[in-house]
Amino acid sequence: MFARVLALAATLLLSISAALAQPADPILEKKIFELPSYTTAGGATIKNVKVGWEAYGTLNADKSNAILITHFFSGTSHAFGKYAASDAAPGYWNSIIGPSKAIDTDKYYVLSSDTLVNLNVNAPNVTTTGPASINPDTGKPYGMSFPVVSIKDFVNVQTKLIESLGIKRLRAVVGASMGGLQAYEWAASYPDKVDRIVAVVAAAQPDPFLTGWLDVWAAPIKVDAKWNGGDYYGKEPPVEGLAAALKVVSLHANHDQWAISTQGGPADASKDPAAAFDNKFKIQATLDAAGMARAKTSDANHFLYLIKANQLASVDPAKITVPALVIYSSTDLVFYAPTVEDGAKKMPKAETMTITGPYGHLNGVLAISPAGDKIGEFLAR
Amino acid sequence: MFARVLALAATLLLSISAALAQPADPILEKKIFELPSYTTAGGATIKNVKVGWEAYGTLNADKSNAILITHFFSGTSHAFGKYAASDAAPGYWNSIIGPSKAIDTDKYYVLSSDTLVNLNVNAPNVTTTGPASINPDTGKPYGMSFPVVSIKDFVNVQTKLIESLGIKRLRAVVGASMGGLQAYEWAASYPDKVDRIVAVVAAAQPDPFLTGWLDVWAAPIKVDAKWNGGDYYGKEPPVEGLAAALKVVSLHANHDQWAISTQGGPADASKDPAAAFDNKFKIQATLDAAGMARAKTSDANHFLYLIKANQLASVDPAKITVPALVIYSSTDLVFYAPTVEDGAKKMPKAETMTITGPYGHLNGVLAISPAGDKIGEFLAR
Repeated sequence: MFARVLALAATLLLSISAALAQPADPILEKKIFELPSYTTAGGATIKNVKVGWEAYGTLNADKSNAILITHFFSGTSHAFGKYAASDAAPGYWNSIIGPSKAIDTDKYYVLSSDTLVNLNVNAPNVTTTGPASINPDTGKPYGMSFPVVSIKDFVNVQTKLIESLGIKRLRAVVGASMGGLQAYEWAASYPDKVDRIVAVVAAAQPDPFLTGWLDVWAAPIKVDAKWNGGDYYGKEPPVEGLAAALKVVSLHANHDQWAISTQGGPADASKDPAAAFDNKFKIQATLDAAGMARAKTSDANHFLYLIKANQLASVDPAKITVPALVIYSSTDLVFYAPTVEDGAKKMPKAETMTITGPYGHLNGVLAISPAGDKIGEFLAR
Repeated sequence: MFARVLALAATLLLSISAALAQPADPILEKKIFELPSYTTAGGATIKNVKVGWEAYGTLNADKSNAILITHFFSGTSHAFGKYAASDAAPGYWNSIIGPSKAIDTDKYYVLSSDTLVNLNVNAPNVTTTGPASINPDTGKPYGMSFPVVSIKDFVNVQTKLIESLGIKRLRAVVGASMGGLQAYEWAASYPDKVDRIVAVVAAAQPDPFLTGWLDVWAAPIKVDAKWNGGDYYGKEPPVEGLAAALKVVSLHANHDQWAISTQGGPADASKDPAAAFDNKFKIQATLDAAGMARAKTSDANHFLYLIKANQLASVDPAKITVPALVIYSSTDLVFYAPTVEDGAKKMPKAETMTITGPYGHLNGVLAISPAGDKIGEFLAR
């Protein structure tokens, strides 16, 4: 009897401590920001621009506590929290954003938006404008007639979003990978609109090796005959090419320690890879499944436009005069540590921090927790 | 007048010293080795196997001075010298193989052969047997009905070649990348037939990350509708997919220092990459041109069979009991230095050496010269 009471008490304590350790995730509402017309950095006009956005926390009276989170290549505005308590998983940076977390929604008004040409056009809760959107002038999807857009354009649309909320100056812009490129762009182009930036696993001036890799990411889409020069809307889309492209992204963003610790051996113990051409190793099956799953909610032309935007990204680090916290991974294969460091050295007020983990570039998302304290302290200054 | 004589003398001296510094490259004759039938490690029988081979130097009386050079993924038997004095360039390791060089053809009989399923089926001077070969039983190309072959099979065919020359034991097997995998296989499977090995930029047990990358290399071929499940002989071959695949290989085998020092900026100064979707950066044009040039002499199915052979490669380093010299590049993205080092530590008689240069994995070919003395000393023991 005593043992049973003890066991019960222990179970109770465990569930209480679990509840304490994991407070309920914030519930966010996805909204849509609209611009009747937007003129790109290249001078083209896009009518009827819409991007999705979400926010949590309370904007203070002088609107000085807003932090913008900018998303990575295959990401969306969904950086933290959930849309419904029943969601399978919270946003990608839930470990560092939320009530009492490093980016503390009890102190800050934290907002995030989908970029132009967002990859996940076909995912629920994503709103973006890009080649898959209907061109109001023709009533048909733009396809490859959509104008070239750049990281600067993503940022320009964000400036309109914060203006619409009456925010004149952000406390910070914080982003990983392509989100970091946006943070650098904010600092260089709008030093009057942002107090500081946190750029995670991103270089201000990506090197030509990355330009080449981005081309390699894109290549399978163009090889897929169903891509058809970008004209596939209403027809069968180039899913196979897109899945192959997303396979490259998945692998390039990771690192060998992840593969060694989780991906050894055959996909199916009863199907020796040596016995037949199509018998796979586990990592082949993992990449195939990941690529195909991601392709279902993505759009091939949007992928190509994102590639172009990333290839065009380059910010003179000397122009990043606001305080910058540059966090990087020494095993990053996308943004090489020396390239990130070179950029940070040229910024007047940058400090750097390294993160470690088995995931290479993806450490910026999957192993960001240990940087939480540093980020919190940097934001609070 | 005096000045003219001096100038003439200087010119003469220069041409003499150039002749002294660059002795004529050896001229090799490409030959064909034939096996009426070969049974693979997996138990399949291939009739009428042919592989090309070449050799230079003199086999000594007791046939104990033969060194076998094994080639890399996209390589051929042409490791050094020329087929004709007018050839544009010599073989890939000409800097370390030849008369008075590290692998000294004045002392050693140096031979090299094309592997089974060699990539460069359509190149002059290459002879191989693989999916592009005619199946004597059907009179048609094998396509994907060709049996799976492994590095062990490449080595087994080489053992038959040296037997045909009366060589019972090789002084050494020396190879880079996939050539290194063959060297490891020789040591583990035939310790009675080889005195020592030199494995350059290769790990005895490649890790699953490489297995995944090899899948990424192959992906564009399978996406190309012209690949048609491997059935394209006599039709239009999947050149676009093959070129995209070779683009991945070219980039993955290199490193960012190469890109930074040689590939910055746009492909065409008058075509700003920001101005139009198809305006390229220099590195994009470089990769496109390299991929397309290599695709012309390559075969897509052979590429896929080579991928499979490399994915299956794994040798227990504890079985490599002959002396091994393991040379690797710390910036290698194909065979990571820690994986190479781990393997070498488990070999009873291995010593290691690092090579440096801007080319990552390709340092094993393009920056091998500084390892020449060490290789020469190791071979002479």
